[in-house]
Amino acid sequence: MNKRGFASDNFSGVLPEVMEAIQEANNGHVMAYGGDTYTASAIKKFEALFGENIDVYFAFNGTGANVIGLSTLTQSYHSIICPATAHIQVDECGAPDKFTGCKVIPIECADGKLTPELIQSQLHGFGFEHHSQPKVISITQSTELGTVYSPEEVKAICDLAHENNMYVHMDGARLANAVVSLNVDVKEFTTKAGVDVLSFGGTKNGMMLGEAVIFFNPQLSLEAKYVRKQSMQLCSKMRFIGAQFDAMLTNNLWLKAASHSNKMAKLLESEVQNIKQVKITQKVQSNGVWAIIPKDKIEKLQEKYFFWVWGEHTGEVRWLCSFDTTEEDIHGFVAQLKAIL
Amino acid sequence: MNKRGFASDNFSGVLPEVMEAIQEANNGHVMAYGGDTYTASAIKKFEALFGENIDVYFAFNGTGANVIGLSTLTQSYHSIICPATAHIQVDECGAPDKFTGCKVIPIECADGKLTPELIQSQLHGFGFEHHSQPKVISITQSTELGTVYSPEEVKAICDLAHENNMYVHMDGARLANAVVSLNVDVKEFTTKAGVDVLSFGGTKNGMMLGEAVIFFNPQLSLEAKYVRKQSMQLCSKMRFIGAQFDAMLTNNLWLKAASHSNKMAKLLESEVQNIKQVKITQKVQSNGVWAIIPKDKIEKLQEKYFFWVWGEHTGEVRWLCSFDTTEEDIHGFVAQLKAIL
Amino acid sequence: MNKRGFASDNFSGVLPEVMEAIQEANNGHVMAYGGDTYTASAIKKFEALFGENIDVYFAFNGTGANVIGLSTLTQSYHSIICPATAHIQVDECGAPDKFTGCKVIPIECADGKLTPELIQSQLHGFGFEHHSQPKVISITQSTELGTVYSPEEVKAICDLAHENNMYVHMDGARLANAVVSLNVDVKEFTTKAGVDVLSFGGTKNGMMLGEAVIFFNPQLSLEAKYVRKQSMQLCSKMRFIGAQFDAMLTNNLWLKAASHSNKMAKLLESEVQNIKQVKITQKVQSNGVWAIIPKDKIEKLQEKYFFWVWGEHTGEVRWLCSFDTTEEDIHGFVAQLKAIL
Amino acid sequence: MNKRGFASDNFSGVLPEVMEAIQEANNGHVMAYGGDTYTASAIKKFEALFGENIDVYFAFNGTGANVIGLSTLTQSYHSIICPATAHIQVDECGAPDKFTGCKVIPIECADGKLTPELIQSQLHGFGFEHHSQPKVISITQSTELGTVYSPEEVKAICDLAHENNMYVHMDGARLANAVVSLNVDVKEFTTKAGVDVLSFGGTKNGMMLGEAVIFFNPQLSLEAKYVRKQSMQLCSKMRFIGAQFDAMLTNNLWLKAASHSNKMAKLLESEVQNIKQVKITQKVQSNGVWAIIPKDKIEKLQEKYFFWVWGEHTGEVRWLCSFDTTEEDIHGFVAQLKAIL
Repeated sequence: MNKRGFASDNFSGVLPEVMEAIQEANNGHVMAYGGDTYTASAIKKFEALFGENIDVYFAFNGTGANVIGLSTLTQSYHSIICPATAHIQVDECGAPDKFTGCKVIPIECADGKLTPELIQSQLHGFGFEHHSQPKVISITQSTELGTVYSPEEVKAICDLAHENNMYVHMDGARLANAVVSLNVDVKEFTTKAGVDVLSFGGTKNGMMLGEAVIFFNPQLSLEAKYVRKQSMQLCSKMRFIGAQFDAMLTNNLWLKAASHSNKMAKLLESEVQNIKQVKITQKVQSNGVWAIIPKDKIEKLQEKYFFWVWGEHTGEVRWLCSFDTTEEDIHGFVAQLKAIL
Repeated sequence: MNKRGFASDNFSGVLPEVMEAIQEANNGHVMAYGGDTYTASAIKKFEALFGENIDVYFAFNGTGANVIGLSTLTQSYHSIICPATAHIQVDECGAPDKFTGCKVIPIECADGKLTPELIQSQLHGFGFEHHSQPKVISITQSTELGTVYSPEEVKAICDLAHENNMYVHMDGARLANAVVSLNVDVKEFTTKAGVDVLSFGGTKNGMMLGEAVIFFNPQLSLEAKYVRKQSMQLCSKMRFIGAQFDAMLTNNLWLKAASHSNKMAKLLESEVQNIKQVKITQKVQSNGVWAIIPKDKIEKLQEKYFFWVWGEHTGEVRWLCSFDTTEEDIHGFVAQLKAIL
Repeated sequence: MNKRGFASDNFSGVLPEVMEAIQEANNGHVMAYGGDTYTASAIKKFEALFGENIDVYFAFNGTGANVIGLSTLTQSYHSIICPATAHIQVDECGAPDKFTGCKVIPIECADGKLTPELIQSQLHGFGFEHHSQPKVISITQSTELGTVYSPEEVKAICDLAHENNMYVHMDGARLANAVVSLNVDVKEFTTKAGVDVLSFGGTKNGMMLGEAVIFFNPQLSLEAKYVRKQSMQLCSKMRFIGAQFDAMLTNNLWLKAASHSNKMAKLLESEVQNIKQVKITQKVQSNGVWAIIPKDKIEKLQEKYFFWVWGEHTGEVRWLCSFDTTEEDIHGFVAQLKAIL
Repeated sequence: MNKRGFASDNFSGVLPEVMEAIQEANNGHVMAYGGDTYTASAIKKFEALFGENIDVYFAFNGTGANVIGLSTLTQSYHSIICPATAHIQVDECGAPDKFTGCKVIPIECADGKLTPELIQSQLHGFGFEHHSQPKVISITQSTELGTVYSPEEVKAICDLAHENNMYVHMDGARLANAVVSLNVDVKEFTTKAGVDVLSFGGTKNGMMLGEAVIFFNPQLSLEAKYVRKQSMQLCSKMRFIGAQFDAMLTNNLWLKAASHSNKMAKLLESEVQNIKQVKITQKVQSNGVWAIIPKDKIEKLQEKYFFWVWGEHTGEVRWLCSFDTTEEDIHGFVAQLKAIL
């Protein structure tokens, strides 16, 4: 049995219900590239979630989903504004920059969240041909620092974007964790708030692989199928992604999985917050805890429970929980932590 | 039960051994992005197949694998020479063109195979800054028309390439079918013939998804990991691709699967070759039969056994066999064909 | 005094009237980037030529002008169809491929001219996401082989394009030579024939440098200013390009210059057509003569009058005339040719 | 006579010596694309300036020169670090981003100058495939805020770059102004300090158009000629750029022109620094003065002497001097300024 740690939700495997759906889909021949009933069923469930006026494209991974969404919204002389911590800025090896050709403009923000005030600083040069034209604001929900935007916060950003003839892209690699955290209908901070394109995450929430790009305005996706294919994200045996999403959207499995990982993070928080040498650095609003611990203890602690260092210089670490994290994992880890400190 | 047809080898599902391997890999936490034992084991098996001096990168799909290989070999001022029927020319929505920035130069050839003579016509302008510099010859084995290059034919192309300071990329989406067809060690028409980079296909031969980019000269792949990531082809839960390849390379499963689909194509050929209104148009050397049939019968025939029309104007059709095609499928289809004609 | 030869119309210098206009523009301060009276005056003259419903952008060179036009018409999942001899295919080091991201599809044609029949062979796959979507037909007037499309021929291509929801781009690096050759109003084979975007050449017809991208449908150029800037073709001291075009369009200087170079080519043709060892290979319809001469005499002949070899293997050569070619040049060259043969 | 103002050094025309050189070059036929004696002579003079071990490529404009240099140094998975005020970040409509495919990372700095400390904040993720690999530090000399790096400051940045296997690109659109300001040999802050590639500006210092990309390590420019051509920066009638640079580098014309414009800026500074409502915001080290003046007076002041607003919100303005700015211009402007305030 491979051991569990707190490195990332993509160190975990696949939810049993999802694995079962994969096996059931392994049945005879079906149309390739998405013309199958598994995919159709999953898309129907997305429509039940977000309303019928949407357009859904499955992709292999989060980087691919983000690039499809961003490419569809932009021309290469546009700019894309995002937090300096955004996955598209820090963790995608420049895929969005290369594929869209756009200038990606990072904005520093302590908690991973943009605000209208921060964005405003980059809203200039409209109509001036020397300047990349601001076109997209990309936010992550929940953020790369585990924080969550309220529906009102998202709406304020969307309003600012639309006033300036811009679009809002939401990277929802951990969308489910935000839904659970906010305890609202997902529409509240997506369609109703004004988001234009959403990357709906599957992999980190317990799928084997698969993300969905969801356009809330079909005018924006008229040619998205070409963008997906050209960005190398069109799966031939699509039924195996369709079937996974179908399982995730059945009986709220996606929310149950996120609910569990969020709960484990809360448990971890409560267990470590009174340890003197542990300083929690971000609000615990989704499935992770960010904390500063003594730098010289990190390596020892990683041995038994692997996790990633977040800040090389500061000693900040990230502990992420998954759908399969157990209370025993938390208690074991905390015991180890106390022992080492 | 979904019905089987002759549309494409990606209409089929997943080999049972592969599915089993996927399930076994669903076990606890492992390092993401390829740092897992399943991936390591698969790579070891590739080394056993091709020699240790290789460098292997898994990708999601064939387009992605081709783009990684081609990007690694080129700068944007280079050109890539390929058959006019090549997947990279016809079926990837321009992904190689966009991602490499190169000029892709198609050459007409009746059987999907380049020859040194055909290639020579595009080998000019070396050193002349106005002209995209020829840098890669891309060939497909087995070809998009079901034909197969002999080791000598591949070697002649590689020799020409290397004499001109160029590289050879082989799109092996159906590599296994060529190995079986030629009945030689795979090294004969790859490493020994001089191929520089190979896309080793998995999906069409019975995997759920997954291709391998194999560099036969590690100097060429020094920075390939960045190319893979930036081209959105790095899988986070990589173990599930690693485990599939591991299964394929165990007990020659990859060759057994291809052997079967090739055999089915041969059976189909023998059954239809004497039907008067069927004119077979390409040598049957792998898992497909290309034939011209009366155009007005196509639609009727597709109803029960789906397949793709190859030439809209000519009435040429393509019948592909898969790992799961049965003799009954062939006989049923031929009976239907005869009935309709 | 630098000697004159027959290498290319860009071996020649600048028309005296153009040089004078440059000097007159060197006067105090004016708005940079095109907000000056010289540029405004030149654009007014383009409007007089083509009608007021146009949009004009100056660029540095022909490659730049072509790329601006093509980029404005395309998304990266489109394809651009052109003759295999097109400047955009052969002589721009892949700039259009890289900058547009499109697939550029070359079509073989003996005289440098596309026809609807030839184009039709590439018009397939519409709506099929695997295939780069055909979007632009690019033709050159006069062609890279010195031939000229009649207005009817251009119109037939434009009609085919528009029936298929495509655009027509005309590379007019030697447009003036075609106008003179056809002896028609330039509108006959541009606006009236249905061309969407034109690269209007200046440099080869006697300017120091400068080309104009002219959109005949302003809807197509709504964001062209950003494309020009991002493609590095926006001149800061634009007045010096504006003043040159202003001079060219004054008293029909552009047509006078082309009329002269065409006449010189006709004279050259008449002088060499009866020389036994000279075989003229293309119709002489603009300012050049293509001919096959004994390969072993080429080098000797180049010594005194430089020119370019067109076909390395065939012994085909190209002799181009310029605005400053004299009858003495022709006679001297022909005498030399006869002496060497 | 067009009036002079303080908008930009590209509002001015051409130095008389440069214009004369252009006319003299207009003489018969010469090899196109740089194979002419004018270009050869200019390059010889660059070698006299920087040493023989350099490689020089002329380009049309500053954006083009920057893009050629940056493209030659990078692969698309690299990042380019620059000040947030850099021309490549703010004023080139994303040309470097699109053409290199790299991530461009802006760093805030009050005076337009990077420091090793500031750069260090972005030097992480080396070898980590998820992260664009830092490869180039781009600095501007003199900066977009009129300040100047000392040779020691440049060297410290170059040392940091080279320690990290990175390169330094210097945007020298106003290089001459820095040389004059520092009163040192240009080699002191270029070749001797460790700069790898330099954009040597011509246009803003009194040429009609033309910049030079200078590689101080010919290994870096082995294929630069293809990059220049593909980036649409290869001039066909190159002699007219060559002749201009030849004139600039004759009798130190380039330094004389910059010396004058710097002197005029100093005069302007001394005249306005004691005006109560004028707050100079940057050190005056080259040919411009940055100042905050009452926002409601700006429009009135622009009427007679045009200049650009630098900060829409702050009332900061930029006054640039050119080679042709006169003392009368300064006095007239200052009188006007006092009258309006």
